[in-house]
Amino acid sequence: MIKVGILGGGQLGRMLLQQAANYPVETWVMENDASCPAAHLCHHFVPGNIRNYEDVLRFGRQVQKLTIEIENVNVDALEVLEKEGIEIIPKPAVLRIIKNKIAQKNFYQQYQLPTPEFVVTQKNADVLQHKALLPAVHKLAEGGYDGKGVQIINREVDVDKAFDEPAILEKKVELLKEIAMMLAVDTEGEIAIYPPVEMIFDPYLNLLDYQVCPAALEKEVLWKAEAIAIKLVKAFNSAGLFAVEMLIDRNKEVWVNETAPRVHNSGHHTIEAHFSSQYDMLWRILLGYPLGNTDMITPSSLVNLVGSTDSNGTTNYKGLEEVLKMENTFVHLYGKAEVKPGRKMGHVTILAPDRQELIYRAQKVKQCFSV
Amino acid sequence: MIKVGILGGGQLGRMLLQQAANYPVETWVMENDASCPAAHLCHHFVPGNIRNYEDVLRFGRQVQKLTIEIENVNVDALEVLEKEGIEIIPKPAVLRIIKNKIAQKNFYQQYQLPTPEFVVTQKNADVLQHKALLPAVHKLAEGGYDGKGVQIINREVDVDKAFDEPAILEKKVELLKEIAMMLAVDTEGEIAIYPPVEMIFDPYLNLLDYQVCPAALEKEVLWKAEAIAIKLVKAFNSAGLFAVEMLIDRNKEVWVNETAPRVHNSGHHTIEAHFSSQYDMLWRILLGYPLGNTDMITPSSLVNLVGSTDSNGTTNYKGLEEVLKMENTFVHLYGKAEVKPGRKMGHVTILAPDRQELIYRAQKVKQCFSV
Repeated sequence: MIKVGILGGGQLGRMLLQQAANYPVETWVMENDASCPAAHLCHHFVPGNIRNYEDVLRFGRQVQKLTIEIENVNVDALEVLEKEGIEIIPKPAVLRIIKNKIAQKNFYQQYQLPTPEFVVTQKNADVLQHKALLPAVHKLAEGGYDGKGVQIINREVDVDKAFDEPAILEKKVELLKEIAMMLAVDTEGEIAIYPPVEMIFDPYLNLLDYQVCPAALEKEVLWKAEAIAIKLVKAFNSAGLFAVEMLIDRNKEVWVNETAPRVHNSGHHTIEAHFSSQYDMLWRILLGYPLGNTDMITPSSLVNLVGSTDSNGTTNYKGLEEVLKMENTFVHLYGKAEVKPGRKMGHVTILAPDRQELIYRAQKVKQCFSV
Repeated sequence: MIKVGILGGGQLGRMLLQQAANYPVETWVMENDASCPAAHLCHHFVPGNIRNYEDVLRFGRQVQKLTIEIENVNVDALEVLEKEGIEIIPKPAVLRIIKNKIAQKNFYQQYQLPTPEFVVTQKNADVLQHKALLPAVHKLAEGGYDGKGVQIINREVDVDKAFDEPAILEKKVELLKEIAMMLAVDTEGEIAIYPPVEMIFDPYLNLLDYQVCPAALEKEVLWKAEAIAIKLVKAFNSAGLFAVEMLIDRNKEVWVNETAPRVHNSGHHTIEAHFSSQYDMLWRILLGYPLGNTDMITPSSLVNLVGSTDSNGTTNYKGLEEVLKMENTFVHLYGKAEVKPGRKMGHVTILAPDRQELIYRAQKVKQCFSV
């Protein structure tokens, strides 16, 4: 059996491991927390800090192939491992670009990929030098995750909220809709594209509220988005799964927002709604198998189950039975012992042929299910 | 999280555990072999003999609920655990009936469930007392599994092949087709039925060759089979999943062959081909959730990947890539390090709208994939 390591042990690792059991693969996970969602589902759990050079090096040397479930890993160590012959998917060079938002934006510009206008800021007062960009989004260069590390700067008075560390200040796009597109690239450079999903955000937590697949897009917009996403993954020149988040403005222009070079929240619905899920697909890429079928079985919507604003402490699901009563509605709980406001605790995928039904049921799930 | 124990750590346990990670459940597995297919996917692996009274008792006292993935477990211990308040699904009383083929046949007679004519034999010479039953099938009362413990006795001279231990001698049905029907029964007595599958057996290994879902049955035969299966699970008076194997003779009479009170080989296809899989369904029953949707997403066929007649030693899959190239064809390998002739090493599920296509592709998988 091929030995494959995963850096990170969250829900993405958990769902990867659920799928891994279909294939001849021996799995290794590194993560600090031995009670993390993925710990009990791998063959070998290795406690360690994925941001620590020595830990990643030691971990990587035990396996033949490595992947990640979060970008925030020690890339220096991965580059050493790559030279030593460990196959790393995605390539460390891609991680180096993506984990720093300044490098990521520069990359888009270098490859003439449309991305919203921006400047780099070093301290919060720098924002005042670029009043013409307001209203804007201020994003920390490193370490942001799940809505953290992002601030909306509408007017000059908002400068207090700006980050006092390296960041990008990005002109706000007049948003028509936000979509995400998942692409699979195998080691031969073959590409498979999943249909785009349409994302609706919670304005308070800046976290995904629910998403619908497929996104309702005019053909021309869909084609443009696909062309941009393909150009983007080709520019990265690496095997892997890529979730490309894109913004569509009121003039129907398509802008790249950001890319995750891994299985992604926007692809959870593929477990039930597509023939080959994003998790299946990543194993196919890692193990050198042919790519799977990205076709939709049925349209779907997806609701993230996040810790409610007043939650804190031991996990307690409310309304689970009510959700499980709904037809063709699938619950995935991540086994996190502790809940915090905004923390991703699970998700629900809904299958139905009709978009209105999908939205209606997504709202219903949000109303009755909490943690 | 509810603590649930599984007796047995084979492929059925493995697939149960893949699905368990969607729900708030802490999983325990007991099995002798620490490298068994399910060992690395549970929270707590407990080495032990599932046929040993003390082992099962000790294991069961650690959990709140217990289930099985093989009937051949220590029922005495389960009865003690049941009295102590551990919820056991299926009930030990059901296991006591089913694990002994004599008791199972008597049960069918007692509840007027149609089952082929039979007599009980104690030693092989007894067969000669019942020449009128020949051609017949001789089945060991206890311990038979996957085609072992079954002998065809066509004529008197075959008496040498008959078992010299308690067994049943069953008149051979003039077979039109063999089907299996999966039923889910929750703790409130609610019943959900999966569409029947049609099974085709390998005449040499007496192992399933491939199966197709749904079975091609005339309405009246389907209704009869459903009525019998429902009567049967009601007679067992226990929550659980039940795979009811039935024989349809040339007069289109339906006969109960045998029942497995657990997830079953004939339900593997439900992972991809049905909205709620048999594994999902058993967790819903164990955790007290509403039953899922047994509807078919698309017709399917299923091929068992068994050790070839000349196999022996280290597992080595041939033709895996070729199978993974086939559209909507799903591979499940069980991670068994050692292969033996006839040993179940994995399975392949094929989705397609058309029965001819399903059979054609099943044959193709059988030709190109081996271990």
